Amino acid sequence: MGHPLTETVAAIVAAHRAGTMTPAQTVARSYQRIRDYNDPAVFISLRDEKAAIAEAEALSAKDGGALPLLGVPVAVKDNIDALGLATTAACPAFSYSPAQDSTAVARLRAAGAIIIGKTNLDQFATGLVGVRSPYGIPVNPIRADLVPGGSSSGSGVAVSAGLVPLALGTDTAGSGRVPAMLNNIVGLKPSLGLISTAGLVPACRTLDCISIFSLTVDDAMTALAAMAGPDGADPFSRSRPLGEISAFPGQLRLGVPRKGQLIFFGDTASEKAYGEALERWTSLGATLVEFDLEPFYETARLLYEGPWVAERYLVIRNLLASSPDSIHPVTREITAAGARLTAADTFSSLYRLQGLRRIAERTFANLDAIVLPTAPTAYSTAQVLANPIELNSRLGTYTNFVNLLDLCGLALPAAMRPDGIPFGITLLAPAGHDAQLASIGRAFHADTKLKMGAKGLTQPPLAAPSTSLVGDEIAIAVVGAHLSGMALNGELQALNGRLLEAATTAPDYKLYALDTTPPKPGMLRVNAGTGTAIKLELWALSAAAFGKFVAAIPPPMSIGTLRLADGRDVKGFMVEPIAAEGARDISTFGGWRAFVAEKAAV
Amino acid sequence: MGHPLTETVAAIVAAHRAGTMTPAQTVARSYQRIRDYNDPAVFISLRDEKAAIAEAEALSAKDGGALPLLGVPVAVKDNIDALGLATTAACPAFSYSPAQDSTAVARLRAAGAIIIGKTNLDQFATGLVGVRSPYGIPVNPIRADLVPGGSSSGSGVAVSAGLVPLALGTDTAGSGRVPAMLNNIVGLKPSLGLISTAGLVPACRTLDCISIFSLTVDDAMTALAAMAGPDGADPFSRSRPLGEISAFPGQLRLGVPRKGQLIFFGDTASEKAYGEALERWTSLGATLVEFDLEPFYETARLLYEGPWVAERYLVIRNLLASSPDSIHPVTREITAAGARLTAADTFSSLYRLQGLRRIAERTFANLDAIVLPTAPTAYSTAQVLANPIELNSRLGTYTNFVNLLDLCGLALPAAMRPDGIPFGITLLAPAGHDAQLASIGRAFHADTKLKMGAKGLTQPPLAAPSTSLVGDEIAIAVVGAHLSGMALNGELQALNGRLLEAATTAPDYKLYALDTTPPKPGMLRVNAGTGTAIKLELWALSAAAFGKFVAAIPPPMSIGTLRLADGRDVKGFMVEPIAAEGARDISTFGGWRAFVAEKAAV
Repeated sequence: MGHPLTETVAAIVAAHRAGTMTPAQTVARSYQRIRDYNDPAVFISLRDEKAAIAEAEALSAKDGGALPLLGVPVAVKDNIDALGLATTAACPAFSYSPAQDSTAVARLRAAGAIIIGKTNLDQFATGLVGVRSPYGIPVNPIRADLVPGGSSSGSGVAVSAGLVPLALGTDTAGSGRVPAMLNNIVGLKPSLGLISTAGLVPACRTLDCISIFSLTVDDAMTALAAMAGPDGADPFSRSRPLGEISAFPGQLRLGVPRKGQLIFFGDTASEKAYGEALERWTSLGATLVEFDLEPFYETARLLYEGPWVAERYLVIRNLLASSPDSIHPVTREITAAGARLTAADTFSSLYRLQGLRRIAERTFANLDAIVLPTAPTAYSTAQVLANPIELNSRLGTYTNFVNLLDLCGLALPAAMRPDGIPFGITLLAPAGHDAQLASIGRAFHADTKLKMGAKGLTQPPLAAPSTSLVGDEIAIAVVGAHLSGMALNGELQALNGRLLEAATTAPDYKLYALDTTPPKPGMLRVNAGTGTAIKLELWALSAAAFGKFVAAIPPPMSIGTLRLADGRDVKGFMVEPIAAEGARDISTFGGWRAFVAEKAAV
Repeated sequence: MGHPLTETVAAIVAAHRAGTMTPAQTVARSYQRIRDYNDPAVFISLRDEKAAIAEAEALSAKDGGALPLLGVPVAVKDNIDALGLATTAACPAFSYSPAQDSTAVARLRAAGAIIIGKTNLDQFATGLVGVRSPYGIPVNPIRADLVPGGSSSGSGVAVSAGLVPLALGTDTAGSGRVPAMLNNIVGLKPSLGLISTAGLVPACRTLDCISIFSLTVDDAMTALAAMAGPDGADPFSRSRPLGEISAFPGQLRLGVPRKGQLIFFGDTASEKAYGEALERWTSLGATLVEFDLEPFYETARLLYEGPWVAERYLVIRNLLASSPDSIHPVTREITAAGARLTAADTFSSLYRLQGLRRIAERTFANLDAIVLPTAPTAYSTAQVLANPIELNSRLGTYTNFVNLLDLCGLALPAAMRPDGIPFGITLLAPAGHDAQLASIGRAFHADTKLKMGAKGLTQPPLAAPSTSLVGDEIAIAVVGAHLSGMALNGELQALNGRLLEAATTAPDYKLYALDTTPPKPGMLRVNAGTGTAIKLELWALSAAAFGKFVAAIPPPMSIGTLRLADGRDVKGFMVEPIAAEGARDISTFGGWRAFVAEKAAV
């Protein structure tokens, strides 16, 4: 049992950078743990240990200190290509040797990750249970009688059991979220197109995405940042800025379903845990806003009653014709139905889906996210084997509609129930809000103080959000009424501004108290070194938000270039000299906040 | 024959505003012309004349001077609902009385337009010829032996023959463009979702749009602006800024197909006219850049060999079952095939289309637009009746792929061939570039000096582009190196900046010649009325472009608020006072350009 500080991706990378552990040691530890854990149903194939260790050693030699996943062992769901290992999709008759890495795996390797092996899944990623595989049923490491969850069963278990700190799953209708809940870990289902699906065995190609399992939200975001980005090899990949984790926002509007719309299939412990999770959100400062879940349920029905199963049929059409017995009987029954659907059915469903997407957009217009149970309940392996299709379907109650509606999702541990069954919630928002979900989700997860995974690991303290700019962000230095807590700070908040850091100018400025409403200071540059260092805050705004912010600034304020004490030049507030004439020079206060405090004290 | 100045939408609205004509007179003139023209195949139904005139009179009484389509008579293709007139889609058995206006018609009426009647079409908008209708074949007013073009046959003829100055068509595969060419008028096919399709009889619902016929590009843009915008009643409607016509850009990159890829079916006059159109573009300053047309052809094949015909089948499925003989035999043959397509076929085609869209995106990445023949040739009605499907298909050579690739298009008259057949070109660009196409297309059309429509009308002079801001644009005043033709003006061009106007500050400023590279002036505000009025230019930038522009401005320049001579406050350049210390005061020149000219002369 390792110390928690060497169990997360962040801790492992830090240890590798500090030299307190080597990538080779970490990789060897993973293999040792896999042997010790000794569940043959978790991995379908393992990479040769010596080759993996040699790759880890080469990494160290290359001085890859800057790599974000330096020496991190990663497990890959066996429907994603990794060069050197067969891709089976849990169907031996379908198996092939890929000619190259999937784009996701290639990017993980480029970021310093070491691929350890390929994990078990519900065959062809069809299922949410993890029992539909000829390679066995991975034992749930939290409670051995429960299903591991699927379809990304092996990846979920591998992270929960501490075999690897990071694993790839896939998610078409919940396969990246249900196993996260049942294994008490984080499951990040990115916006469609954010991670290339080139080299993925499709389930429903228009809905598939590669997902991430990890112990913490921050680890998942690190992996997402390493993999995200457009890819010419995947026509469904999209170019969109990923964004960055930011501080927990002061105000938050979270959608919760109307009374009576939630379904728990009689599982009162689940219902109670969900209620307690909502209380936690309230205590964190969120406002809960009711919304109508019915259009989301209708979308879910469209998924399994509509034409998308024809996409699954397309994947195994040849195998169904040539070798039907090589397919798991449940998978075969579900998928073969796809052959009977018509083009007219398909367009009818696409029309209805378009209407439902518009309804969902209106739902989200006034919300930061919605919060739902990840799954309504949990089932034992025995229960699922006795009733394989209906119970599987129930597990997808809160996940099936997500990809059809082009939402991103983040499944988070929320509670360990008194009966030892883990309960989780999922945050959902429109595509493109991955970083925002992470920013609020990490605060929730930290607040639960839950142990991570199955090994009782204590959560590490939350790292401070990054202060670097991302995408087309522009930094703006504010020195007066726009400072945190001051009269005009709301303008920055309304533009989704992000506080980067407190800083100080070079000693090249004079600060004046202007005669404005609200009261503002005005800053003027003087000869270098002959002025005062003035305290300020740096905020990040998108280019468009920065443009709107500057456009709205009234005279006599202007935006120019300020020099900081550390030599950086940033855009920031200055004043027209004519407005400073006759104004009080308050430079000796060293900043507006000190001046305001003194005035208040007087 | 009216004077050209009262034939265009712009001229009619101006005459109504000036009181030199009344809306009632204009509407009565339309009805008189329809009677005189006397082709019963143009309109399927006409509105009661007295009711239309009464509505026009009420408009005048309401003093609707600000309405952009004040008293403009409009014809509506008979697959678009207009309250009070049956919608037939050129199939009497399908006919119904709509309970309300389509959104497009409602918005036209709200803008002051007077609906005159419903025009003939290829049944269910299936066809590009205009001969597939039980309501007869509208005679082509340019050359009577030619097909009128379709499917928007009646609307194209109505505008060309001067019966109305504006008509609505629809466009799924070219129905809004081919008739424009064959009638020597403008056909604007907007970006999908820009005009709501609520109240439109679908052809292929995922590809349909409402299109515009007019004599000039500016008229089409006026109508587009009146109709564009999101609509809760159409889930396919999209919210996107329309943009505004801007001045013809100095530099322009236009895509033309690689050698050997163009098809004219042996029509050398068409081929020659296309070559001459390209020469015109070059003479206008465009750079022609070759691109690969093959992926566009492949997309076109996908449309008619792929699943989209199932969308047409969905529209008339019930009628095909209950009353197959009520459907035009050619339409029936084409549409019934849609019943046999499968969901698997559909998804396969959607996958391929996604790949083709990405290829098209890459094609456009480096181009302002592509320029193609609108149709490769023209056919006589006799030819088409003898070979109805093949010749129809040929007419769609350059139009069929457009909606599948989510492009916007603008069909323009390009030449009157020596044989009296009109030839046209179409500009294409990715969705959202409607205003850009109009901005370059209007300059081309004006340069041809072609008569408009069938009545020999002279084109009016081009109006100056609007100087008002649109969308999230922000105006920036530049006073020095960013002025047109100066060293840094390219920065504004690179950000798609748009010159709005030349202007002058209030007499509140001093201008200094700074010691910078490149040389720049610096402006400082002094007490009101004690300074000089400085010449400047106002440029429009999107909010994001403005943000990037401001972020890139080096010290000692800053962006603050300038007061103009007419009292407006705008964002603009100023300088930190420390940089003006010791600099030469050049205020007496009244602007940077005069100072630079004098320096050059010295």
